[in-house]
Amino acid sequence: MGKGRLEAFSDGVIAIIITIMVLEFKRPESVTFAALLPLLPHIAIYALSFIYVGIYWSNHHHLFHAAKTVTGGILWANLHLLFWLSLLPFVTAWMGENHAAPLPVALYGVVLMMNGLAYNILSHLLVRHEGAGSVIARAVGKDRKTLLSILGYVAAVLISPFLPALSLGLYAVVALTWLIPDRRIERAMKA
Amino acid sequence: MGKGRLEAFSDGVIAIIITIMVLEFKRPESVTFAALLPLLPHIAIYALSFIYVGIYWSNHHHLFHAAKTVTGGILWANLHLLFWLSLLPFVTAWMGENHAAPLPVALYGVVLMMNGLAYNILSHLLVRHEGAGSVIARAVGKDRKTLLSILGYVAAVLISPFLPALSLGLYAVVALTWLIPDRRIERAMKA
Amino acid sequence: MGKGRLEAFSDGVIAIIITIMVLEFKRPESVTFAALLPLLPHIAIYALSFIYVGIYWSNHHHLFHAAKTVTGGILWANLHLLFWLSLLPFVTAWMGENHAAPLPVALYGVVLMMNGLAYNILSHLLVRHEGAGSVIARAVGKDRKTLLSILGYVAAVLISPFLPALSLGLYAVVALTWLIPDRRIERAMKA
Amino acid sequence: MGKGRLEAFSDGVIAIIITIMVLEFKRPESVTFAALLPLLPHIAIYALSFIYVGIYWSNHHHLFHAAKTVTGGILWANLHLLFWLSLLPFVTAWMGENHAAPLPVALYGVVLMMNGLAYNILSHLLVRHEGAGSVIARAVGKDRKTLLSILGYVAAVLISPFLPALSLGLYAVVALTWLIPDRRIERAMKA
Repeated sequence: MGKGRLEAFSDGVIAIIITIMVLEFKRPESVTFAALLPLLPHIAIYALSFIYVGIYWSNHHHLFHAAKTVTGGILWANLHLLFWLSLLPFVTAWMGENHAAPLPVALYGVVLMMNGLAYNILSHLLVRHEGAGSVIARAVGKDRKTLLSILGYVAAVLISPFLPALSLGLYAVVALTWLIPDRRIERAMKA
Repeated sequence: MGKGRLEAFSDGVIAIIITIMVLEFKRPESVTFAALLPLLPHIAIYALSFIYVGIYWSNHHHLFHAAKTVTGGILWANLHLLFWLSLLPFVTAWMGENHAAPLPVALYGVVLMMNGLAYNILSHLLVRHEGAGSVIARAVGKDRKTLLSILGYVAAVLISPFLPALSLGLYAVVALTWLIPDRRIERAMKA
Repeated sequence: MGKGRLEAFSDGVIAIIITIMVLEFKRPESVTFAALLPLLPHIAIYALSFIYVGIYWSNHHHLFHAAKTVTGGILWANLHLLFWLSLLPFVTAWMGENHAAPLPVALYGVVLMMNGLAYNILSHLLVRHEGAGSVIARAVGKDRKTLLSILGYVAAVLISPFLPALSLGLYAVVALTWLIPDRRIERAMKA
Repeated sequence: MGKGRLEAFSDGVIAIIITIMVLEFKRPESVTFAALLPLLPHIAIYALSFIYVGIYWSNHHHLFHAAKTVTGGILWANLHLLFWLSLLPFVTAWMGENHAAPLPVALYGVVLMMNGLAYNILSHLLVRHEGAGSVIARAVGKDRKTLLSILGYVAAVLISPFLPALSLGLYAVVALTWLIPDRRIERAMKA
């Protein structure tokens, strides 16, 4: 099976996820600065989620760029990843409206964690399909970055009942470590 | 007429259908576990619909992969399928909010049934267009799986006034039988 | 300028327009047939709009299939058409909630009329760009069908204050005349 | 890295941004002209935002048409532009509901300004990546038009507390200067 339509469909779903989050902003009740202010944390959290979805799109792009064909299992591992990504707009809106309340912060971390796991499963299936000597296998390696990120999310969820603001900070730090695009694949392709 | 834009347009519509369902989640009224709990059945039903839309996308992908050109009739049979798919977010949200109430459960089944019929019409038109000896014709065969699924939906609708939870179980079972990708077409293409 | 990205962008916009209309359905207030019934006219009007958007997508597909390159003017004539198409979800929802009330029925007709005009402008620009001897020029001809449709919408708008149900019938009749795909272009391409 | 998926993803996001703005129209409370009238300014502002998004899509199209490959930095500069574009539906709806109230008018200008800056950053990164002798470098030149537009937005924001209607007029004038497609790139490519 070719990978073209899988990439196009994923692009479509990710493009919608990244954009519909903006529909959840509540319009300020009056046209004053005072009414606009409570929206700022929501916009900041939207920016964080936007960056996360951007990271997934960028890594997805790199991952499938190195792939040649896909199997039914890869197709469903990809849909599994898209499912968890699709829950980001909901947890973004809930956290955006309740700022650093513990439960929304924890749920946000759980969804990030499930996304990390889903991405890990997807990349492992691709490595197994392409073979040990393939570009993807060399590039993904042991994928320590995804595993470390998942540990970060778990830590943030455990901290959230006590210091939700610190959990939020952890989500931002993990995102920053990913903003540097995955040069492992680029390097492996040149080698 | 080429099939490229029909595939791209269908991908777009299906990507939107699978994603906008998430806009229907009602945010919990307070940031407590107690307020979050009633959302869990809605998320479970969303997952079921997500899987169904994923199945249709996957089968659509396989079906048109084997096709070469399309006619005006196929184009409209495809739009007919997209119409019924587009009603899934509505029945998902209605059932999601009212859990296993008989009428939403029945309506969900009616929409699944119409999707099955629309897919059946579409694949028959493609077989007729491509000819009896084509890859699609060998692959689709008598398409017993779609017909059996439709019977499953009809049974679930009939049961819904009495045991709506059983109907829901039937929808899940039918989905499971489809999670295994349609290997008939893959097999026929290799032969 | 190539036509590929213009087609892809138009596909995206039209796919979203055809799908977001479903977000406007109001969920019935109770899980009874009585509460579901008032939704049926809205679903019927949604089906009509779905068919109209499908017609525009199909004709757009045919039109650009025959084109080779596009100019800045064609690009903006295309965006102009997409603008009027994007108002269809709004008038569909307003008419859907108020059934055959005169003003929503009239506004629906005005939007259809503007879409017809926008399509007419777009196809004329394409004919002028491709030249008198081109496939498009032979195919589009005097485009009597679009002009007759516009006359139909004008008549429906004028009738709407007195017999809005008849206007609705006219919209359905015009749609039916377009369901037959535009064989003029297919014929001209073979010639 | 190829530019194909970046273009496809950007097309998807921009197509969604341009279309979801229509979901923000509040349906008139009654089916009378009097209830419809307050919507007209909102529709006019929607048309303005539609034109702005159309301009960005058209310029984006031209910019990447002339590009050959993209880097990780360009990918993120592109996501940065999409972020600010994605805030347009929100400020459009807020201004649409409050017509020419100073604060929404100012915020609309701030978002336009950030879009201008983001586009400027993106085009500079592309020029640097492609090299001084490239088609893009010749075409973009000093990009005075983007800088002048940003000055126009700044002026409009400064005026908004006193004469918000004049600010709105300035936004419309800047849009008009861009409606003429960016012929610099087309010219440079022919040269």
